[in-house]
Amino acid sequence: MSDQLKYIKENKDRFLEELKELLRIPSISADSAYKKDVMAAAEAVGKSLKSAGADKVEICPTPGYPIVYGEKIIDPKLPTVLVYGHYDVQPADPIDLWDNDPFDPVIKKTDIHPEGAIFARGACDDKGQMFMHVKALEVMMQTNTLSCNVKFMIEGEEEVGSVNLGWYVERNKEKLASDVILISDTGMLANDVPSITTGLRGLSYVEVKVTGPNRDLHSGLYGGAVANPINILTQMIASLMDENNHITIPGFYDDVIEISKEERAEMAKAPHSDEDYKRKLKINDVHGEKGYSTPERASIRPTLDVNGIWGGYMGEGAKTVIASEAFAKISMRLVPDQHPDKITKLFKDHFESIGPKSVTVEVTPHHGGDPYVSPTDNRGYKAASAAYEDTFGKKPIPVRSGGSIPIVALFERELGVKSILMGFGLDTDAIHSPNEHYGVFNYFKGIETIPQFFKHFAEMED
Amino acid sequence: MSDQLKYIKENKDRFLEELKELLRIPSISADSAYKKDVMAAAEAVGKSLKSAGADKVEICPTPGYPIVYGEKIIDPKLPTVLVYGHYDVQPADPIDLWDNDPFDPVIKKTDIHPEGAIFARGACDDKGQMFMHVKALEVMMQTNTLSCNVKFMIEGEEEVGSVNLGWYVERNKEKLASDVILISDTGMLANDVPSITTGLRGLSYVEVKVTGPNRDLHSGLYGGAVANPINILTQMIASLMDENNHITIPGFYDDVIEISKEERAEMAKAPHSDEDYKRKLKINDVHGEKGYSTPERASIRPTLDVNGIWGGYMGEGAKTVIASEAFAKISMRLVPDQHPDKITKLFKDHFESIGPKSVTVEVTPHHGGDPYVSPTDNRGYKAASAAYEDTFGKKPIPVRSGGSIPIVALFERELGVKSILMGFGLDTDAIHSPNEHYGVFNYFKGIETIPQFFKHFAEMED
Repeated sequence: MSDQLKYIKENKDRFLEELKELLRIPSISADSAYKKDVMAAAEAVGKSLKSAGADKVEICPTPGYPIVYGEKIIDPKLPTVLVYGHYDVQPADPIDLWDNDPFDPVIKKTDIHPEGAIFARGACDDKGQMFMHVKALEVMMQTNTLSCNVKFMIEGEEEVGSVNLGWYVERNKEKLASDVILISDTGMLANDVPSITTGLRGLSYVEVKVTGPNRDLHSGLYGGAVANPINILTQMIASLMDENNHITIPGFYDDVIEISKEERAEMAKAPHSDEDYKRKLKINDVHGEKGYSTPERASIRPTLDVNGIWGGYMGEGAKTVIASEAFAKISMRLVPDQHPDKITKLFKDHFESIGPKSVTVEVTPHHGGDPYVSPTDNRGYKAASAAYEDTFGKKPIPVRSGGSIPIVALFERELGVKSILMGFGLDTDAIHSPNEHYGVFNYFKGIETIPQFFKHFAEMED
Repeated sequence: MSDQLKYIKENKDRFLEELKELLRIPSISADSAYKKDVMAAAEAVGKSLKSAGADKVEICPTPGYPIVYGEKIIDPKLPTVLVYGHYDVQPADPIDLWDNDPFDPVIKKTDIHPEGAIFARGACDDKGQMFMHVKALEVMMQTNTLSCNVKFMIEGEEEVGSVNLGWYVERNKEKLASDVILISDTGMLANDVPSITTGLRGLSYVEVKVTGPNRDLHSGLYGGAVANPINILTQMIASLMDENNHITIPGFYDDVIEISKEERAEMAKAPHSDEDYKRKLKINDVHGEKGYSTPERASIRPTLDVNGIWGGYMGEGAKTVIASEAFAKISMRLVPDQHPDKITKLFKDHFESIGPKSVTVEVTPHHGGDPYVSPTDNRGYKAASAAYEDTFGKKPIPVRSGGSIPIVALFERELGVKSILMGFGLDTDAIHSPNEHYGVFNYFKGIETIPQFFKHFAEMED
């Protein structure tokens, strides 16, 4: 057994305990009520980096939540790996659907995780995966096997669109200079089917408001004679897709790069069963754009989803009211070469134009992100692939993911460096959902694999 | 000047004082903290009926608040008028929006009420209007002009849905036997534009739930490949109306009685301006079923309004989630001869049938109410019309109201008697709102008009 594995084995319980400690901090960046907790999470990450052996650890202020920086430069001539992750988490609601307090981590066995999984908000996204890199640094430091320089950039606003990361990166290009960026904020196909994410969808996220009468009205006295903002909102949203679930916003598909038959055939090799998919989600049928498979719909095609809707009376019983206002949050996942700002503008112009004269419509952009595709023939990918082979005993499959990590495109643009998306989560880990969890196996497999990446990256040529 | 007018003039101050006394009792039926006051109001009404000259006055117990009964039978061969009203009132909150204590009546002049209006909770709805009938009885008794037998049925639960009125009526059909029911619990167009409400809309109210995946999902990883319950709900609701705002539920209009050109022409005489309507509601355009005017859309046509909708993330900021469930509360206003139970079933069958296989749809009925229309060619209406002509100097306009008063249909069903809605309130009286008031002019005009109704009803043939 290698020194690294021995060290991991000896410190297993502590590595778990330290992660649980971090998970106890409700660092919800979307809700200002948790400001103190988000700051506390930043401090905790800084401390853990120091004790892992990082130098120059700073909590770098930004116009929003701070970015935690730390580095270990062993030899300027050696290649440098920049690790990115985030310490903020999604809101936990609906709280009542959790089996345990989302901020009091519990380890439980599941069918997919016979060795147990850590149940807590952020367990997988992204505290658990980010913390693997901190522990991997400790392992390499303690076993004198650190083979590259390493820098850490851990932010606290990923779940709200990394609104200040660009601001920080632009101002710290030299400090962040590196040869490759390593990110664990995605997933793999299964614990026995390792994979590396080579593509990500972009994002355009807007909030819409439809206003009718200047006050709530009695639906008996006014019903039928005034535009009901909720009825109108449902009609406007419904009109955004046709019967083939094709998005009807003019120009929406203009920049979409059609994937070649060959690439689609390659993708189709990844194991997938609509039956399993339906069973796991307890749905009677899949649903999506005509002419594409489920994995394609969730990765290489753009989407439009209502993430939230509200208006009128939502309480017990019946209230015969016509609301003055109705609201929705709508997000669109984008694929190369769609541009979020362009899509947001197309949406805003179109949506504001389809409202009838009897209401006023407002569209407020939230945040966006560029789609991204990384080649599989560069040094970073090859080093990652070799690392998985060492620890999983098989070559990882390159996969295009439906999610968005807008920063990946930002890094390439600002720092000129490719990112490797070394994610160890599973689809079933319920990130952004109640009972989010992260496999104990996955946590330690990550801590084990990351040092192998450093080793191979140091050995390989560009 | 008639004896009646002379008597009213001589007792004007006392008539006002007695109403104010009744208004000082906070008989809020919705709030059990006021139980003693509601009972006290019942007692006060009983006392006032006795002193007006009624016999057999009883405070009749029900499973809820009592019903005050009283009668004056002068000759079994004469027709009998049954007066309905209620002594309970709406809660007064938000209290801080009142200019005076809602239960310490104040008389103030307003633009619409130059002779002054009584400001107090219940001034118009319904103590003020109900008490006109008590005083009218006194007037007729004191001037020996009572020309019909009269019965009073004054309840204390109208503001909480008349939950025990049906119970009482079923058990007292003989006692309540009458030729016409007289109710003053509605309004008229203006003090110089008398009107009589001849129709009320019925109601079908349902709650719908659309369920997709068994948990909230990450909209990046699943977006585009699973049915989003909110998107689906908006499509289902939108499909319930066509481009002419015509409701598409099969069979929905089957029982709707088309109004004759003549009656529509009659209705069109009621003063209405879309411009004023738009200005008051701060809307750029009216909106509704093609081929009908604004007053028609709000009265003689059925509607479908979403009263509330909710699902997914409604908090601050952006959450990229696909919700597991989406909900809406939907109400339909009904017109003769639509039946609420039938419409509710049509809605449920249709709505549950249009959901795609990828979701499950549930429809839960809330409560319903029958529509009602009283012909303008029957004895009761003709007597009322003649009475208004005597006291206002002009024929009243028959008006169909968009609201619902389910008890009117109950009376027709259980007692087989038509109700005449002789309301003297104004739209601007702010019933159910802060600063509710009732014009002194309207109060005495009612006391003056009611005896004329008795006179004409006695003289007319069926």
